[in-house]
Amino acid sequence: MSDLHERVSGSFQAQGLMKTLGARLAHVAEGEVHIEMPFSPALSQQRGHAHAGSITSIVDSACGYAALTRAPAGCDVVTAEFKVNFMRPAMGRRFLAVGRVASAGKTLGVCTGEVRAFGGEGEDYKVVALMQATMVFVRP
Amino acid sequence: MSDLHERVSGSFQAQGLMKTLGARLAHVAEGEVHIEMPFSPALSQQRGHAHAGSITSIVDSACGYAALTRAPAGCDVVTAEFKVNFMRPAMGRRFLAVGRVASAGKTLGVCTGEVRAFGGEGEDYKVVALMQATMVFVRP
Amino acid sequence: MSDLHERVSGSFQAQGLMKTLGARLAHVAEGEVHIEMPFSPALSQQRGHAHAGSITSIVDSACGYAALTRAPAGCDVVTAEFKVNFMRPAMGRRFLAVGRVASAGKTLGVCTGEVRAFGGEGEDYKVVALMQATMVFVRP
Amino acid sequence: MSDLHERVSGSFQAQGLMKTLGARLAHVAEGEVHIEMPFSPALSQQRGHAHAGSITSIVDSACGYAALTRAPAGCDVVTAEFKVNFMRPAMGRRFLAVGRVASAGKTLGVCTGEVRAFGGEGEDYKVVALMQATMVFVRP
Repeated sequence: MSDLHERVSGSFQAQGLMKTLGARLAHVAEGEVHIEMPFSPALSQQRGHAHAGSITSIVDSACGYAALTRAPAGCDVVTAEFKVNFMRPAMGRRFLAVGRVASAGKTLGVCTGEVRAFGGEGEDYKVVALMQATMVFVRP
Repeated sequence: MSDLHERVSGSFQAQGLMKTLGARLAHVAEGEVHIEMPFSPALSQQRGHAHAGSITSIVDSACGYAALTRAPAGCDVVTAEFKVNFMRPAMGRRFLAVGRVASAGKTLGVCTGEVRAFGGEGEDYKVVALMQATMVFVRP
Repeated sequence: MSDLHERVSGSFQAQGLMKTLGARLAHVAEGEVHIEMPFSPALSQQRGHAHAGSITSIVDSACGYAALTRAPAGCDVVTAEFKVNFMRPAMGRRFLAVGRVASAGKTLGVCTGEVRAFGGEGEDYKVVALMQATMVFVRP
Repeated sequence: MSDLHERVSGSFQAQGLMKTLGARLAHVAEGEVHIEMPFSPALSQQRGHAHAGSITSIVDSACGYAALTRAPAGCDVVTAEFKVNFMRPAMGRRFLAVGRVASAGKTLGVCTGEVRAFGGEGEDYKVVALMQATMVFVRP
């Protein structure tokens, strides 16, 4: 496990919400992090699809950790704000949130993210949500 | 229980995520809905505060249900998009999400929301998050 | 003219775009700034109403200057990001952008804004746009 | 000139604000539109760079026209809302706004946009702003 993966993984394990949602860290690279979440009725809105809040949670973490891979040494990352579009009902057997760094300064990072819904065997996916987020680098 | 409360309550019960997060419907009025969520480590981010995703989940539902109280008869509400600012760490013993309708047309509703963190006995609160959201009225 | 008004006014005069749009500073108070803009076909979109861009320009400046009234001494303000909902066509004889500070920290300020369209004699107004913005305090 | 270009161009000419800002339609393709704007002090904020409002205006039009290329026949497009991140000072001799359709339904389209700042001869560019927008298809 690389230092980069370790840095992200340690923080991810400390996020109680990720465990509650059944999410796991799927991929860590410089400037890009993936988080996977199998669908469960425990994540649903009133129509039985995944709730906008559960979809947002994993793509927020994915963007935050993507920013962490580009953060100044010793800094943690917190979310200043984000915006998410929900382009179609979040139906699928599993969801993959992809967070990427668009730019990183000394204090702020800007990230874009998407959530992909995978339906079944064939594993084709549809993008169900798009995020644009501002992350803050904070010193301990 | 009023018809308005019943309409919202029935849908709220069907949201698996609200149960998973330990949230409950606290107030329903024409154009305004409150949702309450006690803090739990199961909702946390890496520093032990409430995760932006759990905070967003309850204020998204509060805004969605506020819109539902103003939706054309027979319509359901889904979230088209939202934007949330996180103004300070979400620390508290419980959180109250307040969603309000700013405008409602035939197809779209615009809502504003905030999440209040209550610390303890004295019950003063601080606003930890602000939402601005677009909801879509959908016919079954 | 108060120091507060002077601080804002000096910067406002330096914004070439405000002059181009025919906008003027209408009100400056601690945490709240108003900017007025008469309608002109030079500000229009394809249907003859005010373009989302001209509406956004004045409410961005109003929010930025509201933040400036709460900025640490010697700091300037730049826009990190904003989100705007356009709730109805921007029709009117004049527009008033109202920017307010929701919270101000050492580095970031969060503001909310609205744009009011005034129709004519009676001077009733309709809110045509809502902004939620993040401002950065920058040292020279 | 293709039908697509003509449809967009006709509407663009009717936008008074684009003329006021000195913007011109640079490229029209299925799902993607570019708008160019040379820098001028008439577009500036207080530090002499391009104002967030002028940058937003061209990328809003670029996204709106990108959506128009995918709109149902006979429909016009209006902006429901957008969010823009300003990643660095908008300094340059000219700016190019690129708007793209991410998804298009019957009623709503979601677009992403960016604004590129070109400095001079060499014509390297930097992305100064990112937009994520929701467009509404409206019938006359």
